[in-house]
Amino acid sequence: MTSLALIEAAARRLHGHARETPLLNAPLLDAIARRRVFVKAECLQLTGSFKFRGGWSAISALPPEARSRGVLAFSSGNHAQGVALAAQRHGIAAVILMPADAPDVKIDNTRAYGAEVILYDRATEDRDALGATLTARRGLTLVKPYDDPQVIAGQGTIGLEIAAQTRALGITEAAVIACCGGGGLSSGIALALEPHAGFRLHTAEPAGFDDMARSLASGARETNPAATGSLCDAILTPTPGALTFPILRRLAGRGCVVTDDQALQAMSLAFAHLRIVLEPGGAVALAAALFAPDLPDTVIVTASGGNVDPAIFRTALDRFPA
Amino acid sequence: MTSLALIEAAARRLHGHARETPLLNAPLLDAIARRRVFVKAECLQLTGSFKFRGGWSAISALPPEARSRGVLAFSSGNHAQGVALAAQRHGIAAVILMPADAPDVKIDNTRAYGAEVILYDRATEDRDALGATLTARRGLTLVKPYDDPQVIAGQGTIGLEIAAQTRALGITEAAVIACCGGGGLSSGIALALEPHAGFRLHTAEPAGFDDMARSLASGARETNPAATGSLCDAILTPTPGALTFPILRRLAGRGCVVTDDQALQAMSLAFAHLRIVLEPGGAVALAAALFAPDLPDTVIVTASGGNVDPAIFRTALDRFPA
Repeated sequence: MTSLALIEAAARRLHGHARETPLLNAPLLDAIARRRVFVKAECLQLTGSFKFRGGWSAISALPPEARSRGVLAFSSGNHAQGVALAAQRHGIAAVILMPADAPDVKIDNTRAYGAEVILYDRATEDRDALGATLTARRGLTLVKPYDDPQVIAGQGTIGLEIAAQTRALGITEAAVIACCGGGGLSSGIALALEPHAGFRLHTAEPAGFDDMARSLASGARETNPAATGSLCDAILTPTPGALTFPILRRLAGRGCVVTDDQALQAMSLAFAHLRIVLEPGGAVALAAALFAPDLPDTVIVTASGGNVDPAIFRTALDRFPA
Repeated sequence: MTSLALIEAAARRLHGHARETPLLNAPLLDAIARRRVFVKAECLQLTGSFKFRGGWSAISALPPEARSRGVLAFSSGNHAQGVALAAQRHGIAAVILMPADAPDVKIDNTRAYGAEVILYDRATEDRDALGATLTARRGLTLVKPYDDPQVIAGQGTIGLEIAAQTRALGITEAAVIACCGGGGLSSGIALALEPHAGFRLHTAEPAGFDDMARSLASGARETNPAATGSLCDAILTPTPGALTFPILRRLAGRGCVVTDDQALQAMSLAFAHLRIVLEPGGAVALAAALFAPDLPDTVIVTASGGNVDPAIFRTALDRFPA
């Protein structure tokens, strides 16, 4: 089970390997939001998203014998790249199972981080069966994207950094908003900040894929009606994680929900005022800070990833000039 | 005269006011450059460029009585915004003289940082005479963009941070490339790194506006044949500074020169692999690290600013897909 102690241990293993990302702000962005907004820029993390932390945490926590046989992940996105680079820097094999119709750039980048990419046909092949065969035959360990205590602990190291960075700024009360797919990032941050009574964690999700917000409201794990249909592809998961949801149910405030257009507008404002590159799914927490009602005067958001198709980035700049 | 002691004093005055910017790198960018490239991301500085450091340094060094009367700057760009915010945060007036044909967004942003913007007609009005009248009548102190010991000291704090950040990474030998207009940034960094024998400072300029590179080669301050004609508008100055050139003549290696297209390509690669937003003038040092021959295995570059017209940014992404 993930605990503050497990997060602190992960932070020690990540030290000198993951980047301590800056907490950015901009007076002109605050003027637009009409509150103080601080942005934890995980788009500046190695591989362009916070997923490197969870990958490193999980791999570094494996017993040496299991680790030496290598790891497996299912992902077409940020988790794939995070696990691939973490494995490469541990000197072990990473096998990433990706759908054959994944964008070439994601396949190429994952391979460039040294991973063996195995493509499968979504329509005719069973991903889980393929994975089970690989783990059995080659002794690989599966690194799940969020429902793993050490992955949650790795993402939670962001919360420890937020605690230290806000302390330096004299901030003691704030809403902390995290982009939310399965809940690994948000549950880890919530645990890390649990000792700080002035901070309350909120999830942020795209409209139509707000399974976590509805689950927090109902008290049970709800599901989304559709699997695709938002630009925020990095954070579309069918339902909250089995490990992450109990943590968030205990610690999180209400979930925030933003539209795709609000996420695009947040990308454009981050371009103009923070000079960082965000992907839509990485911008939903900032969008909530900018556009959601009923937030306190100080809001800290994660900008969780910046691996964006240039065409989508251009759309954000064109449609929402800052 | 700027010295290491003056830079260290400026660093103490900037502490808690300017941002310590991260030193970024990316394995996939290193693969393209075929060397290790570390990027000092000053685009993440307050106001989006390193100019805030020099502005803060100069204002905070003024005698209290002079400071209370306010400051004046001539600039249509990054220096205007840096001086404006530094003055606002000191609680003093800033008057910025800008040409009436400056882009609206730059005028608006400078005003948003609390400055009084006075527009003049480039064709019919004498900027220096206007400035002299203002300083005399209102007791304002002129903050020059580079030829001022305290401005150079402020920019030099970047060199102190590079020294500390590279020490943490175990880097002892590298070329350090700084984007160069009048030479305030590069001369400050050169002085700050003078005690580090393994680091050698190089300037980077756009082709056709390589007055510093030619001056370093000839030993005398050369001038550019034209005043405009490069996308790198932030760093087009007619000739090296009177204070900055002797420092660079003593400490700098040969100057690097890159084309506008190489600067645009560096912007696109920084977008894709570092997830930061650079303006063309802020990308010339990275362009040199990527494309210049005869550099060592480890190169540290300043990414000096990110205040870019979205249309130019789109051009970079369109013409040079990463």
